Amino acid sequence: MLSFLNDYSETACREIIGRLSAVGTEKNPGYGTDSYSESAKQKIREACACPGASVYFLVGGTQTNATVLDALLLKHEGVIAAETGHINVHESGAVELTGHKVLTLPSHEGKVSPPELSSWLRNFFDEPTFEHMVIPGALYLSQPTEYGTLYTKAEVREIRRILDEYGLKLYIDGARLGYALASPGNDLFLPDLAVLCDAFYIGGTKQGALCGEAVVFPKEAPKHFFSVMKQHGALLAKGFLLGLQFDTLFTDGLYEKLAGQAVALSSRLREIFREKGYRIEPETVSNQSFVVIGKEKAEELAEHARFEYWGPYSETENVYRFVCGVTTDPADVEKLAEFL
Amino acid sequence: MLSFLNDYSETACREIIGRLSAVGTEKNPGYGTDSYSESAKQKIREACACPGASVYFLVGGTQTNATVLDALLLKHEGVIAAETGHINVHESGAVELTGHKVLTLPSHEGKVSPPELSSWLRNFFDEPTFEHMVIPGALYLSQPTEYGTLYTKAEVREIRRILDEYGLKLYIDGARLGYALASPGNDLFLPDLAVLCDAFYIGGTKQGALCGEAVVFPKEAPKHFFSVMKQHGALLAKGFLLGLQFDTLFTDGLYEKLAGQAVALSSRLREIFREKGYRIEPETVSNQSFVVIGKEKAEELAEHARFEYWGPYSETENVYRFVCGVTTDPADVEKLAEFL
Amino acid sequence: MLSFLNDYSETACREIIGRLSAVGTEKNPGYGTDSYSESAKQKIREACACPGASVYFLVGGTQTNATVLDALLLKHEGVIAAETGHINVHESGAVELTGHKVLTLPSHEGKVSPPELSSWLRNFFDEPTFEHMVIPGALYLSQPTEYGTLYTKAEVREIRRILDEYGLKLYIDGARLGYALASPGNDLFLPDLAVLCDAFYIGGTKQGALCGEAVVFPKEAPKHFFSVMKQHGALLAKGFLLGLQFDTLFTDGLYEKLAGQAVALSSRLREIFREKGYRIEPETVSNQSFVVIGKEKAEELAEHARFEYWGPYSETENVYRFVCGVTTDPADVEKLAEFL
Amino acid sequence: MLSFLNDYSETACREIIGRLSAVGTEKNPGYGTDSYSESAKQKIREACACPGASVYFLVGGTQTNATVLDALLLKHEGVIAAETGHINVHESGAVELTGHKVLTLPSHEGKVSPPELSSWLRNFFDEPTFEHMVIPGALYLSQPTEYGTLYTKAEVREIRRILDEYGLKLYIDGARLGYALASPGNDLFLPDLAVLCDAFYIGGTKQGALCGEAVVFPKEAPKHFFSVMKQHGALLAKGFLLGLQFDTLFTDGLYEKLAGQAVALSSRLREIFREKGYRIEPETVSNQSFVVIGKEKAEELAEHARFEYWGPYSETENVYRFVCGVTTDPADVEKLAEFL
Repeated sequence: MLSFLNDYSETACREIIGRLSAVGTEKNPGYGTDSYSESAKQKIREACACPGASVYFLVGGTQTNATVLDALLLKHEGVIAAETGHINVHESGAVELTGHKVLTLPSHEGKVSPPELSSWLRNFFDEPTFEHMVIPGALYLSQPTEYGTLYTKAEVREIRRILDEYGLKLYIDGARLGYALASPGNDLFLPDLAVLCDAFYIGGTKQGALCGEAVVFPKEAPKHFFSVMKQHGALLAKGFLLGLQFDTLFTDGLYEKLAGQAVALSSRLREIFREKGYRIEPETVSNQSFVVIGKEKAEELAEHARFEYWGPYSETENVYRFVCGVTTDPADVEKLAEFL
Repeated sequence: MLSFLNDYSETACREIIGRLSAVGTEKNPGYGTDSYSESAKQKIREACACPGASVYFLVGGTQTNATVLDALLLKHEGVIAAETGHINVHESGAVELTGHKVLTLPSHEGKVSPPELSSWLRNFFDEPTFEHMVIPGALYLSQPTEYGTLYTKAEVREIRRILDEYGLKLYIDGARLGYALASPGNDLFLPDLAVLCDAFYIGGTKQGALCGEAVVFPKEAPKHFFSVMKQHGALLAKGFLLGLQFDTLFTDGLYEKLAGQAVALSSRLREIFREKGYRIEPETVSNQSFVVIGKEKAEELAEHARFEYWGPYSETENVYRFVCGVTTDPADVEKLAEFL
Repeated sequence: MLSFLNDYSETACREIIGRLSAVGTEKNPGYGTDSYSESAKQKIREACACPGASVYFLVGGTQTNATVLDALLLKHEGVIAAETGHINVHESGAVELTGHKVLTLPSHEGKVSPPELSSWLRNFFDEPTFEHMVIPGALYLSQPTEYGTLYTKAEVREIRRILDEYGLKLYIDGARLGYALASPGNDLFLPDLAVLCDAFYIGGTKQGALCGEAVVFPKEAPKHFFSVMKQHGALLAKGFLLGLQFDTLFTDGLYEKLAGQAVALSSRLREIFREKGYRIEPETVSNQSFVVIGKEKAEELAEHARFEYWGPYSETENVYRFVCGVTTDPADVEKLAEFL
Repeated sequence: MLSFLNDYSETACREIIGRLSAVGTEKNPGYGTDSYSESAKQKIREACACPGASVYFLVGGTQTNATVLDALLLKHEGVIAAETGHINVHESGAVELTGHKVLTLPSHEGKVSPPELSSWLRNFFDEPTFEHMVIPGALYLSQPTEYGTLYTKAEVREIRRILDEYGLKLYIDGARLGYALASPGNDLFLPDLAVLCDAFYIGGTKQGALCGEAVVFPKEAPKHFFSVMKQHGALLAKGFLLGLQFDTLFTDGLYEKLAGQAVALSSRLREIFREKGYRIEPETVSNQSFVVIGKEKAEELAEHARFEYWGPYSETENVYRFVCGVTTDPADVEKLAEFL
């Protein structure tokens, strides 16, 4: 059975498994105070061209979003997101659990539109009774978005300018950031994010690690962020496991190399679909592909491959998601063509 | 350098590392819906002699305590704990973050006294204004306690009887449960816990796993506990990693075997200290040992071994903690004697 | 200056002021355990034809919504509301502060559409990953709505049937309930609400009281709701002040009499506007009127009367809100005509 | 029946009732934006000799404590209080509901000892693992304390100095502040509080108002504190009712005059008890008196007067609390002597 179901269905890339095996019974201090973590942080700071950045390792995406946003927001503030944003839809209300409302803007294939953001903020603060409403304190973006689309550097610069006008913070969810960095045409790199964001995270779970996300605060970390992590149940006792994994991913460009393979395979997969006459919708450049397939055909295909139902398209067709991950076999992509 | 610092300073037992390596690029469904998790749950139900139990895998101890207690308590209820209880002292207020007060009872070497519990509850509900106070909804115990001491079956039965009188729930933190199960003289086993508790967890992180805690609800899981985990950032995307680890630990008695080794070494370590004329205080039977050492001697010893300062004892002496874990080398224990 | 600004700009109806003055230095027990409160509760139970109802007095509307919803919902549950619902827009995130997401449905002049509710719930629970989303636990309605519109008995019955299918609770915000009860054509009375709701409140602040809202739980109050109120800062020390006011309002039909006057004046006011050629939009029957007025004319009118800007209508016109309260002078309504 | 039960059993002082009656159907803007509130704030700023202070009116004490502390604390911080502090004992966990732990120090007749505070803070921050614990962000004091005792200016200055050393804030609960201000020997006045505190409140509910507490931020109010109040359900729609009351209390020294009467009567009451051979314990100077009475005698006395059981004293005696409020009749105090 071929699998294009998602990018979190395998243990980890072989480099990480290899290194974990090699460690043996070596003893490391707990809670991320070890030398692997220190080395990984240093490599991430270098990759971000931001020597003053604070870096922390958390375990998973929802946990990271809720913990970082809670630390960035004042208690009465909400966070703006596209209505399709992961925090608004698929995190069981983790952000609201910490007391913060998610304020929504229309989604354009997963993206927030800078002019709509600007106009929403102007209208909000023009409203005489705005203090009876939830005052926005930050904007949440994801790169790539939940629809595999990308923000350009010009867009995020414009968004930053708008946010600065109103004193809001910018947080970017990078659960699949590597795939964005490796996408053809991408012009928004780690050093850009370090300049433009108040916080962002570099996803590990979906890009070769067993688990783990690296949060970067380019300017200043929230006060006692270590305690904030602990308070949110987000501090791993064996923090060195996360350090060791990110140290591996950020050695010799492995992080981008792995993502690059997945993105190239995803591109090949869309090419195959197009050759066979299928529509791609929306168009993406990262590791997720959205394909319009007739319902009957999809059922037939499901006997040979795993993929996810994404939503309805027409009476007889649906959109389905096909994901390539860091260990997707090129042969599997070619083999899929046989069943189309 | 010898290390008796703690039981979470190594990756995992070699059986788990081996199995992780063997899995290769096998694809598994996410969020704990995989067959490893199913198999592990089944083995845990059998070990608990509780075929109807619900079992969930979370990542770490603080996260588990906060998530499970939040699910067990009504919103206005507090949780009772010994004043030395981990949730009261060393979790950065994770329980309070969810809105619940920790109500404290005196600690007797880490344990709650059943008569004191009974008298506290009687006085509380006799108080005419008790509804202006925080109404207790559950009791938190740890087995072994933070001081390495153990509750007997008779004690927990008596505690259960008292709690039933007032309608409170019982939750046991088993971060080091295996060490309790393997301790000489212990008479409180998994099937007993399944009869006596509303929820408890079987710790993995400190007993051979990379990370992971198995929560057992012997009777009924809280409604939509899957969503509650997600909401608390406690749902691992690659849940099969936790399943695979617990499946390994609960195959052929590995969990108790590993703990048994650590407990035996700890016992040998106390014997060595005693032979050299040191006092053990408090006396323990599990994998943690508390030794009174002169301050100067301790500094000298610290050049050869890692161990933790626990608290003051006299003008010239402190108490120090020495921990044996699942990969502690017996030779290291004997070697320590040379430096005493 | 005439005032149609809102219905919370005056102290209280003269019956309440009179009774407050007459009380003198009489001593009453605190926290709502007094005889005024008991009498008021009994009168409310009778008005609801629900002898088993539990009644509690809180201070204000936002406080009541947040406290009652927090008590009705399980911790991971959200509450559904029209996107214009007061809890979603004008309460500074008080519901989210307690950890609950507000899930929104389209607003039809302030109302939720039963078929849309039904279809939303069916789609939600059909979604295979619904446990990754926020599971709805209750529906919030307001009667009258924020737009002065009313639900019919048939509509709320249908809503109740839909909610029962999925196990959701029904809560109705009655900040202006009296005006609904007194509206011509209304067929949803207190005994109906007691049959159909899990909880609702009878607003005092906007209907003749200094402050105070009476929450009714027709079936069963949430456990220790007294403590829940205290925990939310919603328990008034001098609870007898609330009891005395509701006792007054529910004696000799004063509550409906006062509301009836305001509704009749509001109806007269709309008649005057229509006679002068203004459009009413949306049409309402309760104490709030929404009138389309040219921007210049509105500025002119503002020199003689207070009223609130509600929203844009066309290039040259806006919608403005005119409210009649329990002490609005009939002469003022007639006088307004002179300026139109 | 004489009543010394508490100081919140009456409506309000006659000056306030008179003014409420006189207002008639006058229309005022909502949410505290009215001229009564502005006037009251100005008078309070003057009484505090602090022209730059921000003043807000909330409804009750528990609500005020939870709202202000939530606004002062960072999310991971706890608040230190005496173990007898109202927030720790009698607020149903309102502070914990907002996510903050109450950290306790021993109580000395309700007071925190400056040397114990200093030593606790030094030990806390010396602890190498303090980031795993709840980091204190503020100190809560009450003046007078729950036991009627008073802090001196020298003590609060010393406390301020200690807090500054560690960067903590100081908040004083003044539910009965007027009684402290009017007590013989008191040397801590409003201008002192404005210099020494980050926030404090001037209680109205227990000192002549129907309800209402005036929060003073001498330096800077927390950002958007208006929204924070709304979010906590603490913003009264008819805010002018609170403004009007505090405007009355702060005109011609009424606040201190009323409190002074109560304090003088309380002093007379203790004199009477002493003359009759009763012990006063603890000694107080404010409006609460604690008297040791034989259990049988107390039962007999309860036929003639209301007072509160406070706690056990000996086998045959208890401590009882007798409170004088702003409308206590001097004749009642003298009459009590007849029954002793």
